[in-house]
Amino acid sequence: MEKEKIEEKIDYLISSMTLEEKIAQLKAKTVSIWQTVGKILLEDVFSDLTPEFKEKIMGFLFGFYRDRELAEEMTKALWKKMWKKLVLEGEEKKYPIGELSCALRSMSPRESAEFANEIQKYVLENSEIKIPVLIHDEALHGCMAKGSTIFPQAIGMASTWNPELIYQVATAIGKETRSRGIHQVLSPTINIARDPRCGRTEETYGEDPYLASRMAVAYIKGVQEQGVIATPKHFAANFVGDGGRDSYPIHFSERLLREVYFPAFKASIKEAGALSLMAAYNSLDGIPCSSNKWLLTDVLRKEWGFKGYVVSDYFSVLHLMTKHKVAESKAEAARLALEAGLDMELPDSDCFEEMINLVKGGKLSEETINEAVRRILGVKFWAGLFDNPFVDPDYAERVNDCAEHRELALRVARESIVLLKNEGILPLSKDIGSIAVIGPNAAVPRLGGYSGYGVKIVTPLEGIKNKMENKAKIYFAEGCGLNDTSKSGFDEAIKIAQKSDVAILFVGNSVPETEGEQRDRHNLNLPGVQEELIKEICNTNTPVIVVLINGSAITMMNWIDKVQAVIEAWYPGEEGGNAIADVLFGDYNPGGKLPITFPKYSSQLPLYYNHKPSGRVDDYVDLRSPQYLFPFGYGLSYTEFRYSNLRITPEEIPMDGEITITFEVENIGKYKGDEVVQLYLHDEFASVVRPVKELKRFKRITLAVGEKKTVSFKLDRRDLEFLNIDMEPIVEPGRFEVFIGSSSEDIRLKGFFIVK
Amino acid sequence: MEKEKIEEKIDYLISSMTLEEKIAQLKAKTVSIWQTVGKILLEDVFSDLTPEFKEKIMGFLFGFYRDRELAEEMTKALWKKMWKKLVLEGEEKKYPIGELSCALRSMSPRESAEFANEIQKYVLENSEIKIPVLIHDEALHGCMAKGSTIFPQAIGMASTWNPELIYQVATAIGKETRSRGIHQVLSPTINIARDPRCGRTEETYGEDPYLASRMAVAYIKGVQEQGVIATPKHFAANFVGDGGRDSYPIHFSERLLREVYFPAFKASIKEAGALSLMAAYNSLDGIPCSSNKWLLTDVLRKEWGFKGYVVSDYFSVLHLMTKHKVAESKAEAARLALEAGLDMELPDSDCFEEMINLVKGGKLSEETINEAVRRILGVKFWAGLFDNPFVDPDYAERVNDCAEHRELALRVARESIVLLKNEGILPLSKDIGSIAVIGPNAAVPRLGGYSGYGVKIVTPLEGIKNKMENKAKIYFAEGCGLNDTSKSGFDEAIKIAQKSDVAILFVGNSVPETEGEQRDRHNLNLPGVQEELIKEICNTNTPVIVVLINGSAITMMNWIDKVQAVIEAWYPGEEGGNAIADVLFGDYNPGGKLPITFPKYSSQLPLYYNHKPSGRVDDYVDLRSPQYLFPFGYGLSYTEFRYSNLRITPEEIPMDGEITITFEVENIGKYKGDEVVQLYLHDEFASVVRPVKELKRFKRITLAVGEKKTVSFKLDRRDLEFLNIDMEPIVEPGRFEVFIGSSSEDIRLKGFFIVK
Repeated sequence: MEKEKIEEKIDYLISSMTLEEKIAQLKAKTVSIWQTVGKILLEDVFSDLTPEFKEKIMGFLFGFYRDRELAEEMTKALWKKMWKKLVLEGEEKKYPIGELSCALRSMSPRESAEFANEIQKYVLENSEIKIPVLIHDEALHGCMAKGSTIFPQAIGMASTWNPELIYQVATAIGKETRSRGIHQVLSPTINIARDPRCGRTEETYGEDPYLASRMAVAYIKGVQEQGVIATPKHFAANFVGDGGRDSYPIHFSERLLREVYFPAFKASIKEAGALSLMAAYNSLDGIPCSSNKWLLTDVLRKEWGFKGYVVSDYFSVLHLMTKHKVAESKAEAARLALEAGLDMELPDSDCFEEMINLVKGGKLSEETINEAVRRILGVKFWAGLFDNPFVDPDYAERVNDCAEHRELALRVARESIVLLKNEGILPLSKDIGSIAVIGPNAAVPRLGGYSGYGVKIVTPLEGIKNKMENKAKIYFAEGCGLNDTSKSGFDEAIKIAQKSDVAILFVGNSVPETEGEQRDRHNLNLPGVQEELIKEICNTNTPVIVVLINGSAITMMNWIDKVQAVIEAWYPGEEGGNAIADVLFGDYNPGGKLPITFPKYSSQLPLYYNHKPSGRVDDYVDLRSPQYLFPFGYGLSYTEFRYSNLRITPEEIPMDGEITITFEVENIGKYKGDEVVQLYLHDEFASVVRPVKELKRFKRITLAVGEKKTVSFKLDRRDLEFLNIDMEPIVEPGRFEVFIGSSSEDIRLKGFFIVK
Repeated sequence: MEKEKIEEKIDYLISSMTLEEKIAQLKAKTVSIWQTVGKILLEDVFSDLTPEFKEKIMGFLFGFYRDRELAEEMTKALWKKMWKKLVLEGEEKKYPIGELSCALRSMSPRESAEFANEIQKYVLENSEIKIPVLIHDEALHGCMAKGSTIFPQAIGMASTWNPELIYQVATAIGKETRSRGIHQVLSPTINIARDPRCGRTEETYGEDPYLASRMAVAYIKGVQEQGVIATPKHFAANFVGDGGRDSYPIHFSERLLREVYFPAFKASIKEAGALSLMAAYNSLDGIPCSSNKWLLTDVLRKEWGFKGYVVSDYFSVLHLMTKHKVAESKAEAARLALEAGLDMELPDSDCFEEMINLVKGGKLSEETINEAVRRILGVKFWAGLFDNPFVDPDYAERVNDCAEHRELALRVARESIVLLKNEGILPLSKDIGSIAVIGPNAAVPRLGGYSGYGVKIVTPLEGIKNKMENKAKIYFAEGCGLNDTSKSGFDEAIKIAQKSDVAILFVGNSVPETEGEQRDRHNLNLPGVQEELIKEICNTNTPVIVVLINGSAITMMNWIDKVQAVIEAWYPGEEGGNAIADVLFGDYNPGGKLPITFPKYSSQLPLYYNHKPSGRVDDYVDLRSPQYLFPFGYGLSYTEFRYSNLRITPEEIPMDGEITITFEVENIGKYKGDEVVQLYLHDEFASVVRPVKELKRFKRITLAVGEKKTVSFKLDRRDLEFLNIDMEPIVEPGRFEVFIGSSSEDIRLKGFFIVK
């Protein structure tokens, strides 16, 4: 539809809507199991439930996430009972709510599509104002619903340093999601992870604003081109509270926000055109993000031109009253949020319920409500809901977890793997006689937070078996639980290690047991007795390869010197086991790079590469530099790359000039492989202190043995700018140092240019 | 002299000074051993030094701080050779420099006074413009010079929660310092210590803005009333870089600065009238503090009305070029600093040398220089230098470390001691048969940073001997070195513990070996093998008392459950050993309270009591609340106190009203003792998020057994104010919660009042 025509339609709709109908558009309802079961039980909506079923619900509530089968059964049962009650409000006049939350998660793709159609049909048939309902779910690394593809977790995607690939992932996610009748995903998570203690680091694209921006743009374009509304979150600075505490009060300067925490959001809006955005739980300089007018209106809309609607984080409007205590009532919380620019309350209308009284009491203008309704309707038009609210169940069944998407999941998993240490043991020979597979993460799917139900998850043990079952003896022992204190399984693990040619230890974390949302860690060592397990296996003198399955930095000082190799596999998605086996046995040469700094000790944090200079020293008295265990951008390969022939042209440019930086990379080793070449910049003298270095460009290239490629980057004014003392973007004349690196610390070529 | 008359004199002086003479007033020179020896050797000023002496100097340079005798000998020798060259500049016209640094440190009080007189005499006789020279030294906890009293380190003074006592300390410091011919002290250090990893935490008054303000005001009034210029430092936010890194870039919002990091400085200026102030090493939102016009002119002078002069931190003007890289030359660094409001470069004129060319080249206005000269001359008049630049050597000899000051040092040490744990073992009976004194901090003076040379330091071992030598058998074994890995001394320590009735372990840190300036720690566990030593001694089953001698938080989770008592004695000054013995044997009942939060693990940091609320949870998945090991304001006693009868009157006040809070405290235990009663406030709902609680009043009271006292606090508008979204101080109507506590977490009485 043409833009003018849509505007006309929206004007007409708003002029014909009652106040109740308008407010309903700003509200969401949820039937996801963990949001509503308690409420439902209390309200006795389901007086006809059998005692056994009630018992199951209670068990589920306290066993949170444990039993997916039960979760499915329950959610479906509840949903089918109550959805009609939810999507239309009001006794006399029936008005549809704006959005449904996580509603179809427990259904198969076909069921989901059919049910979504049923919902839309009911709304169109039973409401006076026939506005279709938006349905949202999570889709951080795959639609979080039964039967959809599960890709590697976001931190793994960032480790590919391959935005084109992430665009393909997002395209797949968009197709699967939309096919199910879902129109909005509460993804991607683009917060900057400068403190790996935060449990949600796994959900991010790492510590660097530029890398995160490239990934954010790739993701958003990918899903939105498939008609799915992206919701970059959480605006802003959500995961970097003191001590790595998620959602802790943030007291950063505007400059730090603009230099580090805003760029990925700005790119999401200005470059990728994201149509929704989620406000964060934390307060920002004393104003909660969910009632922060500067953030949600001045910066987001006036400065960046955001045209979509802002949603709350789940319950974050209510938190204005209960946590931040800037509102004394739900009504006041609703008013503060809406007037700041937050358009829709998720997942339920705890506070927005009160709007009717606010308007009637003269405390809230209807015009403010109209504005929010206008934004939501605009996006509903964009999403094609008014043209055709229905989807094709056949297509849903066909596209979800199709062979092409599984293949893509495998490719991403391969590219996400980072080789941290290799004393020559890798890749393993396929002629190896026996393999001990050990560890709590070897035979259990570990997918990370916001994972779907999964169709078939290939565990690491299965991956190794798939590749080697008929070639080598494969023994397995768990050794220990993920977070247990018991060492009762050590003996068996030692026994199989002793009789094997190599021991491969799958250790790490898991969501929600040891990291994830509301699960920040203060100690980045492996949890439980996993470190002891590694040491015991090392004592057998069988060579040890450690494969980490986890979502943030791990500290390894207690054991890294004892093992022969370390692989960081992150949460590698449904094909993770196969990808890991490919890397272990050399069918794929790892080329991923760390998107976060790995510290030596948790007690050093925060620690990130692009800091500004110290006024004195960088070291601690009890820890001399280097401070990192593995720096940002780090990752080994089975082959070697030689960098040469750096050319920077011209040597001098005017402020608006363009500079071309060219160099050559040659594969001088024995394996075909990928290298991520990284360009860092340093403005040598400036009126405002500049970071010691900043990533400005990168490229993942593949080189055959002996192959040499020329890499060329162009930089222009936007790459040289910084905010001066008056917060205006400027370029100052002077020397800019250019660092070409294989990591942020392994700088292979240096040069400079001069801005006149 | 009257104010107008002084202004007249200053006008006259400035009008008669040459540009060179003016610039000289902005410059300092140093002959302190660690600043200049290298330079002197390089410049070959002392071509007539014997090879043996040169050898000694080199040995000293690389053995930094180790040999005080040698340091004295050398500094004196150098000083006597070069001072004339330093205090007057220029070949033709002789103009005196503004300030001498640390010049008299190595001399006895009498020598110092005589020498200061000689310097002033020389300046008056040999310069055309007869302006006396300021001489400065450090005096954080006693004048840092030979023969002066050494009081407990600042963190210990803060632990007394007794500003009246600190006023007495500062009065003593002022008398001793001025008597030696020293006019300015680069003290107090009033930075807020929110991250105990910072090595300079020991120099501070802790984490709370209010407590630090009270201590700062007491110190500044004390020294300035004795004619000594105080120099509160380091402006601003110097010790709270990411990871607890001293002088790291600070990226806080203006609100956080004004709420937490400015109040002690504001009180120092507005309330105590500090006449100098030192700029910090760190950058602040990208602008180094030493060239920060907003900080040094807008806030400090225009807002707070500061009338004194700002000095650089040592070399911080040079760092504008070499570290922060906001200036490309020394001249540019000098211009940036001076124009921002920094009047004097310390300790030497690295950059201010260039001013003459700046003015001649038209890049710096002479009026800017006049303004700085005016400020410095003003303070010189205030300090009485023009009336009488001379001091009385007899008085210097008499007052330095006089009996009265030693007695005061003992009293402060007693009041600074914090009892952290006591399973009933303390106080020890004087009838005890045998005592094992163990540990690297038992028999060596540990005084903390910026300590003087000391006259007679009573170590803990000596303190115990002084009290018990004729009553009990006292054994001593070091056990291990402070930071050693060797356990070779364990056997002897175990042996003496086995044959004793109690083992008292003196463990902790030392400056500069394991903490202090440029010695941040990432790991707050006891260094070296001290933890193992504790555990081994505990294994003897002899009861163990741990006495910590150190300057910041210590993490104790590995051993605290095994010991019977823990005492935090900080760096307790020259009478520390006696004070500790008084506490151990019940001659003094400890009543100090922690001015910083002690965390359970270093990996939790930063952790402080007065944070704003989380948007979600406070815990970590691997560490449930409480997060602290010992909270802010915590400290035990040998007796018990009962709080009762809280009255808040009136219950409702207007915004400008005054509220009176009264309650009773009764000593219901068996010992006379001190209690620090603490009043915390929480503004329940506010338009800007408020901290969960904030200290607003406190009082240290002494109660005899059975005695009951009524404590009364008054609060007014200033205590209720916060900065609204437009950064204006306001009071909002609503409920204020009142917490009366024995610590920030041990709240004994609760109430509230309402502002209408």
